[in-house]
Amino acid sequence: MTLNPNFSQLKSSYLFANIGKRVREYQAAHPNADIIRLGIGDVTRPLPQASIEAMHKAVDDMSRAETFVGYPTDCGLHFLEDAIIADYALRGVSLAQDEIFLSDGAKSDTGNIGDIFGADNAVAVCDPVYPVYVDTNVMAGRKITLLPCDAAHDFAPPLPAGHADIVYLCSPNNPTGTAMDAAQLQAWVDWANAHGSVLLFDGAYEAFITEGLPRSIYEIPGARACAIEFRSFSKTAGFTGVRCAYTVVPKELAVHGVSVNALWSRRQATKFNGVSYITQRGAAATFTPEGRAQVCANIEYYLNNANTIRGGLRSLGFRVWGGVNSPYVWFAAQGGMGSWELFDLLLNEAQVVGTPGSGFGPAGEGYFRLTGFGTAGRTAEAVERIRARLG
Amino acid sequence: MTLNPNFSQLKSSYLFANIGKRVREYQAAHPNADIIRLGIGDVTRPLPQASIEAMHKAVDDMSRAETFVGYPTDCGLHFLEDAIIADYALRGVSLAQDEIFLSDGAKSDTGNIGDIFGADNAVAVCDPVYPVYVDTNVMAGRKITLLPCDAAHDFAPPLPAGHADIVYLCSPNNPTGTAMDAAQLQAWVDWANAHGSVLLFDGAYEAFITEGLPRSIYEIPGARACAIEFRSFSKTAGFTGVRCAYTVVPKELAVHGVSVNALWSRRQATKFNGVSYITQRGAAATFTPEGRAQVCANIEYYLNNANTIRGGLRSLGFRVWGGVNSPYVWFAAQGGMGSWELFDLLLNEAQVVGTPGSGFGPAGEGYFRLTGFGTAGRTAEAVERIRARLG
Repeated sequence: MTLNPNFSQLKSSYLFANIGKRVREYQAAHPNADIIRLGIGDVTRPLPQASIEAMHKAVDDMSRAETFVGYPTDCGLHFLEDAIIADYALRGVSLAQDEIFLSDGAKSDTGNIGDIFGADNAVAVCDPVYPVYVDTNVMAGRKITLLPCDAAHDFAPPLPAGHADIVYLCSPNNPTGTAMDAAQLQAWVDWANAHGSVLLFDGAYEAFITEGLPRSIYEIPGARACAIEFRSFSKTAGFTGVRCAYTVVPKELAVHGVSVNALWSRRQATKFNGVSYITQRGAAATFTPEGRAQVCANIEYYLNNANTIRGGLRSLGFRVWGGVNSPYVWFAAQGGMGSWELFDLLLNEAQVVGTPGSGFGPAGEGYFRLTGFGTAGRTAEAVERIRARLG
Repeated sequence: MTLNPNFSQLKSSYLFANIGKRVREYQAAHPNADIIRLGIGDVTRPLPQASIEAMHKAVDDMSRAETFVGYPTDCGLHFLEDAIIADYALRGVSLAQDEIFLSDGAKSDTGNIGDIFGADNAVAVCDPVYPVYVDTNVMAGRKITLLPCDAAHDFAPPLPAGHADIVYLCSPNNPTGTAMDAAQLQAWVDWANAHGSVLLFDGAYEAFITEGLPRSIYEIPGARACAIEFRSFSKTAGFTGVRCAYTVVPKELAVHGVSVNALWSRRQATKFNGVSYITQRGAAATFTPEGRAQVCANIEYYLNNANTIRGGLRSLGFRVWGGVNSPYVWFAAQGGMGSWELFDLLLNEAQVVGTPGSGFGPAGEGYFRLTGFGTAGRTAEAVERIRARLG
């Protein structure tokens, strides 16, 4: 009897669990401290009213035998896939129902997708990086190369110098808040097609794009042959507590002639049973005219917060990235301070919780992430505290 | 770039997809045929009213910033784990919050649990078996041994003759409908502890037990050191379309001194983001006095259906198992008929869809499964059709 030996190669603790522990310890030692949490990327705005209404109706559907829905995978309903297809069509991207795989979260999907790939693939991830890409591949025993992203290139990921079979890209990026333009994405697609590599494109933050950049990798010619795209309602529509996401696997994507779509379909049919009917109704409602307007208002609210943070930090002389096409603001610590050092300073002096850049990889050392997902009042207060106590 | 080579070892199609295809083809050829589906184990009764009310309230919670809940894993709410703990306590089983892992389904968990075990483990599954146990281990490249269960032993699984590191047990059993008693379960627990093996105990149908048998493997002394238990609200409370389940990993369970609980906790923290708050509220409501009464009424309804099927088949001279502590009725085809042969006969002659026993493994050949999950009227009609056209 053996355990998966790769788990012993994981770093000791998941970043956010580590942050949670430090915050709990601080709160225990300072019971009256008024902590402002701008660390984990969780949303705070209530759900769009359109989703609320749709979910009430769906709950009622589940209360009557005539409208009751059982296994989502067998119920024959595809209203959410159809709404997603229509949304992609607005960007000129054409998808079929069976290229869209609904799920409970992009975290699940970006992790589980590894099931269909060989353990011998070389994986490349950006550095800094969303830790899930790394940890799930460590669990699978894959060799991982870091693509160091630096301030000199505004944290745009460099093409791999060596061999890479699978590359995770995230744009708008978590944690740096920067987004790739069409030319940068085209360079990645061309590289992947030239090398027979697969791009895992995490578009969880596409709704935050304001500057006319591509929102989907499939807006780039050639992407259907090399890219899988992950999307989520978590940050778009505030569904972190509702759980709904989707993964697109185009039919053209093949590895040595074998359809990747067919393998993922089999993986999901075997290890997953679909997304709650109630949740699906709530998600579909975000694509109605009312739903879209309400989602836009929420996104604008968070972007305003990000702008408050961005402006505040810049006025203090910090070098700042993100916060324009992203809810995340990424900034460089001053005076050679380390990321965890700044974490403790912000917690102790300003009672503001952020995320140390080094938690996202070695190239994140010396950087720090704050999010626009708080309330407007608390965000402004956090910035004011930082100004007053660290300025 | 490689795909997971083990996928090519999977049998060509998932059982229920295969059945679906045959039924669609029949329906297309006979557009007026009135098909009764007693095949897939999906429920038909609406949700318990207590869950409906709790979910409406939870949807309202999500509509206001003050009561909004984000990431379920970070919200600090443990009302559902606490309700589950209280439910186990009624059976004399003591569990801690961090021994209970909520999820979107027992299918996901029985599949994903493989992530934490080495690929070199020898896996044993009952034959006939729920196909997910087999397919997920084929995907992981594990050696699988079948434990043939036969009519002479009322389909009770025999202890492995050879070596087995991991054994999947399902009681009440899917597909045979039989349930193990305390002595049988004790024999398995003693065997696992003696051999350092791990039991993966699927208790998804425990709510259907009527004859005073154990409902949890943890009612058996020694089980906390060797068993993981999977449970679900799908069949208990009709949550197939809502998606909620839980897995219990006791702290005592260790492999070569390493905590299995810690590994599963890390796996879930990395590849999963928790269960919808709305869903959790609906699930917790099934443990209230009203919720329990409503769940009991639904279970009784399905057991009555199973009893109708059981009685009808027995009166026709079929040898029948299950249907007493289980919604599933398992019976032997007559006159040496094969399982798929009987499937086609029932579909063509009676327009009744069941599940061929051979789809669950070689030892299921010649057997057939019908479920009590239909409506009372349609179930009675199915039995009447079988009596009239095959009797």
